[in-house]
Amino acid sequence: MNDRNFRQMLEAQWSRGNFVCVGLDSEFGKIPESVKTDRREDYIETVVDFNNKIVEATKDLVCAYKPNAAFYEAHGVEGMRALRHTIENIHLMAPDVPVILDAKRADIGNTNAGYVDAAFGFLRADAITVHPYLGAEALQPFLARAEKGVIVLCRTSNPGAGEFQDLSVNGEPLYRFVARRVASEWNKNGNCALVVGATYPDELREVRGLVSDMPILIPGIGAQGGDVEKTVSAGKNSRGQGMIVNSSRGIIFASKGADFAEVARRETEKLRDLINQHR
Amino acid sequence: MNDRNFRQMLEAQWSRGNFVCVGLDSEFGKIPESVKTDRREDYIETVVDFNNKIVEATKDLVCAYKPNAAFYEAHGVEGMRALRHTIENIHLMAPDVPVILDAKRADIGNTNAGYVDAAFGFLRADAITVHPYLGAEALQPFLARAEKGVIVLCRTSNPGAGEFQDLSVNGEPLYRFVARRVASEWNKNGNCALVVGATYPDELREVRGLVSDMPILIPGIGAQGGDVEKTVSAGKNSRGQGMIVNSSRGIIFASKGADFAEVARRETEKLRDLINQHR
Repeated sequence: MNDRNFRQMLEAQWSRGNFVCVGLDSEFGKIPESVKTDRREDYIETVVDFNNKIVEATKDLVCAYKPNAAFYEAHGVEGMRALRHTIENIHLMAPDVPVILDAKRADIGNTNAGYVDAAFGFLRADAITVHPYLGAEALQPFLARAEKGVIVLCRTSNPGAGEFQDLSVNGEPLYRFVARRVASEWNKNGNCALVVGATYPDELREVRGLVSDMPILIPGIGAQGGDVEKTVSAGKNSRGQGMIVNSSRGIIFASKGADFAEVARRETEKLRDLINQHR
Repeated sequence: MNDRNFRQMLEAQWSRGNFVCVGLDSEFGKIPESVKTDRREDYIETVVDFNNKIVEATKDLVCAYKPNAAFYEAHGVEGMRALRHTIENIHLMAPDVPVILDAKRADIGNTNAGYVDAAFGFLRADAITVHPYLGAEALQPFLARAEKGVIVLCRTSNPGAGEFQDLSVNGEPLYRFVARRVASEWNKNGNCALVVGATYPDELREVRGLVSDMPILIPGIGAQGGDVEKTVSAGKNSRGQGMIVNSSRGIIFASKGADFAEVARRETEKLRDLINQHR
């Protein structure tokens, strides 16, 4: 697995027209009954089986998978097991699709080494999301891993994102300062990316203008209300690429029935086509 | 355990002159050989045994224990087991000492519910550290838990903390804006606190001036170089209290010998006395 490189894997997927990232936010309570019944409601087996089926149904259409750690950590030790198995299985079933661990970590320097071990060692993710607040000096253990993606929160998709992110810093909002900083100072290894929510297309367009062709992870499509045409028009880079467009609930829970995997594939295709129409 | 209230437990410890928080950053590689040999190098048993002995030796002298999640997560499922057992044991051995989970979490709203379950349900912590970047709206699942402490990063102890935290926002640095905001808007349940590093005593004094008697968690004493006299003078509130002064390596790894627990007690007493001398 030593030759996996997040940025290269991503570029390869983009060149196939794959920009959809499927968010594996696999809440146990929302997993279709058919999967649970088969597995006698065992948490780990159910979640891993559900994720496997989603991956099997979508793996030729996506640029990445993105499990959010919170949904797994909620289940303690079992959750960590399920997350590890899920990522392991993605590596086996879809070896050319990178896995983004959406864990939104960041601590001071020597402590981040522990998170690096957790995300890239134990869990074997190809990329991780991080908070910018402690600065690049603190994030060195992440940034130093040139083959891994370090995806920095910039303008998040939530309604209250502006409380700090919109504050004016030297005449521009903080999120723009973060974007500029990551692009100009943090990205020495070419492994950085940013998070900008699809719910804020104007801000997304501004950020794209500041960071050249850097990858942008764009959550907020689907359940959160982001518009695909606006998102693509604002988020694409000079080559009509550069986007990791995430949809979670809108794909994985699109059907509550036994047909959930087929429906997930159909929704992924729909989003994929829509993105390619507009880029 | 339903009657545990972080703020009340903290106040009770302060009234006994206890302001030291022992950071249980129990890296396996640094745990004394004597503990490892007894336990045949088994990771979980070794770490839990080490933590138990530190807690047993210091529990009448401290206001809190603070395990940092990164050191445990680095060991995957075993790490989570060790962390859970450690917190469970603290509740048994020192039922009136609150446990702060230093996990520096923060995601968008519905996702934070997963971290709430992880920290307060599975791990049974009394408080958690969080990043401010996504704003109060996102952090509601934490803030709504009135009996739990929500400790917001404000001015962190690392050398590069100023990259964003010192940016000028409406004529004042961002960390001051965060402090003011948490004190005036986020603290409706009286469960908020801030993190300000002992390595920045001037900033600590400013923050104290902005947040009245709100608790401040102060890391950076000891190994990171923070000065106790300056810290206490800058960090104490109007009642000479309000401080959670953390020391990790300076206490738990003060001796590599079989006397590590005695030495940890001695170092905790020394720090406790020094704080009380100056407040």
